[in-house]
This record gives sequence, structure tokens and C-alpha cells, in this order.
Amino acid sequence: MYPIITISREFGSGGHSIGEQVAKELDIPFYDGEIVNRVASESGYTKELIEEQGEHTNASDKWFNISTASAMYFQSPQDEIFLAQRKVILECAQKGSCVIVGRCSDYILKSENIFAIHVLIHADMPHRIQRVRERYGEIEEVSVKKRIQKKDKQRRTYYRYYTDQHWGDYENYDLALDSGTLGEKHCVNLICELAKHWTQQPED
Amino acid sequence: MYPIITISREFGSGGHSIGEQVAKELDIPFYDGEIVNRVASESGYTKELIEEQGEHTNASDKWFNISTASAMYFQSPQDEIFLAQRKVILECAQKGSCVIVGRCSDYILKSENIFAIHVLIHADMPHRIQRVRERYGEIEEVSVKKRIQKKDKQRRTYYRYYTDQHWGDYENYDLALDSGTLGEKHCVNLICELAKHWTQQPED
Repeated sequence: MYPIITISREFGSGGHSIGEQVAKELDIPFYDGEIVNRVASESGYTKELIEEQGEHTNASDKWFNISTASAMYFQSPQDEIFLAQRKVILECAQKGSCVIVGRCSDYILKSENIFAIHVLIHADMPHRIQRVRERYGEIEEVSVKKRIQKKDKQRRTYYRYYTDQHWGDYENYDLALDSGTLGEKHCVNLICELAKHWTQQPED
Repeated sequence: MYPIITISREFGSGGHSIGEQVAKELDIPFYDGEIVNRVASESGYTKELIEEQGEHTNASDKWFNISTASAMYFQSPQDEIFLAQRKVILECAQKGSCVIVGRCSDYILKSENIFAIHVLIHADMPHRIQRVRERYGEIEEVSVKKRIQKKDKQRRTYYRYYTDQHWGDYENYDLALDSGTLGEKHCVNLICELAKHWTQQPED
């Protein structure tokens, strides 16, 4: 049986696509948008709100400010979404081998002592800009760069808030890959290679 | 032809041993202690001094303080050793495929636009303590931990001083591996796997 694989990724690094290809190659479930659907049906919040609030946070966001200031007194919608996501991620993991993308899944599984291979996918800014422009059509380079920087900041703040760890610290990942220099194909192959040979705990 | 591979590593993570096994598996030269020998014969400094000054620095070290304060006016022995190491590393790289361990080799090759796969090997403290104790015989755990922390600090300061980059930033590496969770064998296999399939530039 393959291990569970979590994929943390920088926006525009191709982490979603790499995770999807790994899951296909290993023939195991892939959870990304699927998590949003389940959280929506469990929490009652809309998919749009979960997509917006379920992984990002904006320091100027009204809800986030409320949750920061008054976390002791009541649960903000963002906290509720985090907890619903946490529950769904743990349910997915308990079913066995799978690929889970983002949403602090690395931290959530570790906190419950559920074994998984934790992967980080990153790329330099030029590669990310190119990828986002290809994916979303021809957009001005400057505005794409600003969008990437904003997403980075939101994800880092969100991760920091819910895990008390610094997003991207190499200590948190078993495997960190530069999809810009290696290319998607090499990243997929390396993750599959590791999963396929993961028949036992390290011998040394 | 295999690419050049640089290996940066945390003290006690097994990076030297992993690099040696990769070089053996790929049948390409391995440069670690060899660099010290060459620098010694070129610079006239002793091997012991090069080992001590060629990768570490100590904020309280007299020479380092001199070189920091007066770098504009004269070259310290540490600077001379760095430059001699840089020359030897570039000569090694120019001969073709090889594995080079530490000594800012990642930064030095990038600064000269020499293509290489840059690997970081890290592990958590318990794994590193265990490894160092096994390697150097039974030493008290507390003193081993202090030694590891000191080496980390020295290597980070040295790297920062000569590259103006933060040691361990994931952006600097194509591949970062946790040898504690993955084990040496998996690390060796993943690096070899990447090198063997590196027949062309990334396609995406």
C-alpha cells in the first residue's frame, strides 16, 4: 500500500497538477477541490467562500481581524471552515493511500500522528508567472506577479495562524522540489518513485 | 552524461555519506576531502586550518572579525581559503559530471552559470544526534546536541557571509531531502533517479 502524500505548493508552481498526476499514476484518490465540496456540504458555507477562506487569509480581512482579536470568545467563520476542513482531511486520510493538496494537511496529519510523505513544490518567480499566464490566458506580467505575491502572503499568514509554523521551512517536508528547474515530469516521477519503494520504514 | 550534483547538508544528516554513495552509483568523481587537499597544496595553508576555516566561521573568531571589519582593506586568511576553494570547485566542475559536497559550491556554480542539480540534505535533531553518536562513538547526548547547534551556526554564518543568501532557503535547491524520515537509501536512490533521467532540460 502506498503512503499518504501531502503536497504543499507555491501558487503557480504546478503543485495541483503534479499531485493529480501522482494520484493517477499510483491509482489512489486525489483530494483538492473534493475537500471544498465536502466542507461545503458539512458546514453549510458556500464553495466560493470556502475556496476564498479555506486556505488564504488577508490581514485586512474583516473576519480574520475578528478571529485574531476575539478568538477566545467565539469561533469565526474562518475558524469553522478550518475545523471542517481538518475533519474532512482526517476522514480522507483514514481511508488509506491518497494525495492531499494544501490546506495545512501536512500539519494536520502530523498533529494526529498519521504517517504521510510531505512534499513541497516550489518554483522561481519567472516560472510561476509563465505558468499562471498560460493557465489563465494572457494577463499582464506585472499584475500576475502581484497576484502571486498576494497569494503567497495570504497562504503564509493562514498557515502561520493555524499551525504556528513558518510556511516553507525545509524541516517540515520530507521532499522539496523545484518544479521550475526540474519540470513537472521529473517531480511526478520522483514522488512516485519514493511512494513505490516505500515498503518499509527507513533502515538507518 | 550525468549532471554535476552539489550537496549542501546539515551536520549529522549523512550528506557526505549520501553524496559518496551517489558518486559511486553513478561512477563519477566525489569531491569533499579532496577539495581540502587541493586547496592545501595551492594555498600553502595546512589541511587542518582549511578544514576549520574552509566551511565554518565563528562570530567570536579573531580572523572572522578582522575580515568582517576590514574586508575593504586586506584579504584575511579565511578569504584566501574561500577564494582557493572557489577556484578548486570550478576546476572540478569544469572536468564534467561529479558530486561536490558543501563549501558554498551551489552558490559558486550558479554565480558562474554552470549547470548543476543542487541538493539539500537535512534531518531532525534526534536523527542527527543518533548519527553523530554512532559515528564518533558514545558521546553524551547533551554535548552532541550543542556541537551540532554550533556547527549549524558556523556554517550558516559562513554561507551568509560569502553568498549573501540565507542557508537552507528552499528556493536555493532543486531537491531537498529529509534523510531522517526517508533514510539514506531512499535519498541516494532519488538523487540517482533524477541524475539518470536528466537527459534534457525540463519540458514545461
